[in-house]
Amino acid sequence: MIHTRLTQMLGIQHPIILAPMAMAAGGKLAASVSNAGGLGFVGGGYGDVDWLTTELANAGDAPIGVGFITWALDENPAALDIALARKPRAVFLSFGNVAPYVDAIKSSGAVMIAQVQTMADARAAIDAGADVIVAQGSEGGGHGQSRATMSFVPEVADYIAAHSPQTLLCAAGGIADGRGIAAALMLGADGVVIGSRFWASGECLAHQNMQNAAMAADGDQTLRTTVIDITRNKNWPARYNIRVMKNEFSDQWHGAEDALRKDGAAIDQWNAALAAGNPKIANPIVGEAVGIINEIRPTSDIMNDIMAGAETLLAGTPFTQN
Amino acid sequence: MIHTRLTQMLGIQHPIILAPMAMAAGGKLAASVSNAGGLGFVGGGYGDVDWLTTELANAGDAPIGVGFITWALDENPAALDIALARKPRAVFLSFGNVAPYVDAIKSSGAVMIAQVQTMADARAAIDAGADVIVAQGSEGGGHGQSRATMSFVPEVADYIAAHSPQTLLCAAGGIADGRGIAAALMLGADGVVIGSRFWASGECLAHQNMQNAAMAADGDQTLRTTVIDITRNKNWPARYNIRVMKNEFSDQWHGAEDALRKDGAAIDQWNAALAAGNPKIANPIVGEAVGIINEIRPTSDIMNDIMAGAETLLAGTPFTQN
Repeated sequence: MIHTRLTQMLGIQHPIILAPMAMAAGGKLAASVSNAGGLGFVGGGYGDVDWLTTELANAGDAPIGVGFITWALDENPAALDIALARKPRAVFLSFGNVAPYVDAIKSSGAVMIAQVQTMADARAAIDAGADVIVAQGSEGGGHGQSRATMSFVPEVADYIAAHSPQTLLCAAGGIADGRGIAAALMLGADGVVIGSRFWASGECLAHQNMQNAAMAADGDQTLRTTVIDITRNKNWPARYNIRVMKNEFSDQWHGAEDALRKDGAAIDQWNAALAAGNPKIANPIVGEAVGIINEIRPTSDIMNDIMAGAETLLAGTPFTQN
Repeated sequence: MIHTRLTQMLGIQHPIILAPMAMAAGGKLAASVSNAGGLGFVGGGYGDVDWLTTELANAGDAPIGVGFITWALDENPAALDIALARKPRAVFLSFGNVAPYVDAIKSSGAVMIAQVQTMADARAAIDAGADVIVAQGSEGGGHGQSRATMSFVPEVADYIAAHSPQTLLCAAGGIADGRGIAAALMLGADGVVIGSRFWASGECLAHQNMQNAAMAADGDQTLRTTVIDITRNKNWPARYNIRVMKNEFSDQWHGAEDALRKDGAAIDQWNAALAAGNPKIANPIVGEAVGIINEIRPTSDIMNDIMAGAETLLAGTPFTQN
């Protein structure tokens, strides 16, 4: 067992948080991660109240958290009320200013987790009173920015040590097995956030065709783009883009975004492919770690394997000798 | 002491390789890293024979290696002959096809090190017979591509385990202290390549004004760009760009590369600033790890500190309990 400040604060067995992947992390996946000893999150994403209500119900009685895209919550704050009414173990906000939400979240009894992509945002989230900072590297799937995990995590750790030692730190981006967990703890994190590895599970809402395409890919086959925010009509601030699997559609339109905005037929084609589960047109949303993920598995098996790997690495290494 | 397959193969004390930073890693820095127990490299870069001859002499009798930009060596293969005549411990090639050089390097008795940025290039370099693969993440300073260290290193490790277990692996990109070394070993590397941390040393050829500007920066203040390859008239293949510190010049010209190519006055201004050591115009070439580097120090002190940090982390961790 690996005990850290994160397992203690959240009351969980393993220092592992499920990334609240919008549309993919439903109640079933969230509950399965919590039941396996981590903390699962429902991916509240853009704050769709009907989807959120359904998926919170699908989590049953499992202790879970809820995640939101912060700038979307600004436009639809009622979604947070629905989440807090469920008494979540934690609320996970990313991509925006968390300050307006910290008091409501903490006074509800939930742990306030703020995911950040830059040092500037890390400093702001710590000042705003977040309990846990998630330093997210650009290798991760989904939205993000350009800092990478290997140097971003220790830099945030140094800032926390100097300015707010009671704040916890998690690493996100590129972590999919015991090696990544052990590395993140070496870098100064109290735990990790894992997306793609659980996306490739039997409990995830992603279409199986999308999952199978990702399992066949190596880690070179992703890119950061804005193409699928155009097709999905999502109004993301310019500093964010999204890591997805490359396919025929992104090969054609990445770099031709202005033309795509005017091409309704192409946009319709992408959305039809998403509904049909066609990964040649609709892009699976996964990170570079897809290159070290090779099989769709049940969440509990994934958790057992990655924790066994991390525990072996951390129990003592073959590297050190006198 | 941390013994790995890398320390054994290279006959060194610590599993640390100096990144062969063109124009910055001269003979003095290379020798200082080797004398401190790692393996120093002269940054032969584009193959300038006069510079290389001078800096090989400046290394004295220290056991060192030599690095080159592979595509530049294609245009100027005589530079490799000069390097091999010095009987280097290793030759480090990056950015191109190493296959034409492997036999000459290995038959000279030098270890053949190939730095790669994609899985496709990793597979090619392993097939070509490289002794050591360096998996370089995009967070590193200088030229590179988009894969990040945290997931790229274990993916290359998996490929090596399955296809060429005798090949060694180093991690590069974002590693500047004991935390990064420990993390890289957890990810499956046999050692690390460190650039920025030794760039910020007393033995480096970088201008002190450049170093001081970098010491004041956080890790958000770098970007990948092609602007300084335009100002330096370097004909890099399109898939590579270079991580540098942002400054007034890159703020103005990043994204306006076509205009910069036609603006001789702006190009002259940049080169004059480089000669004068003006970091507001000429961009220091450092990686995101600049955010965890705060002081210019002697190489030997740097090495002592980072190895002490790594040894403490790897000697056994506070994370594991029964």
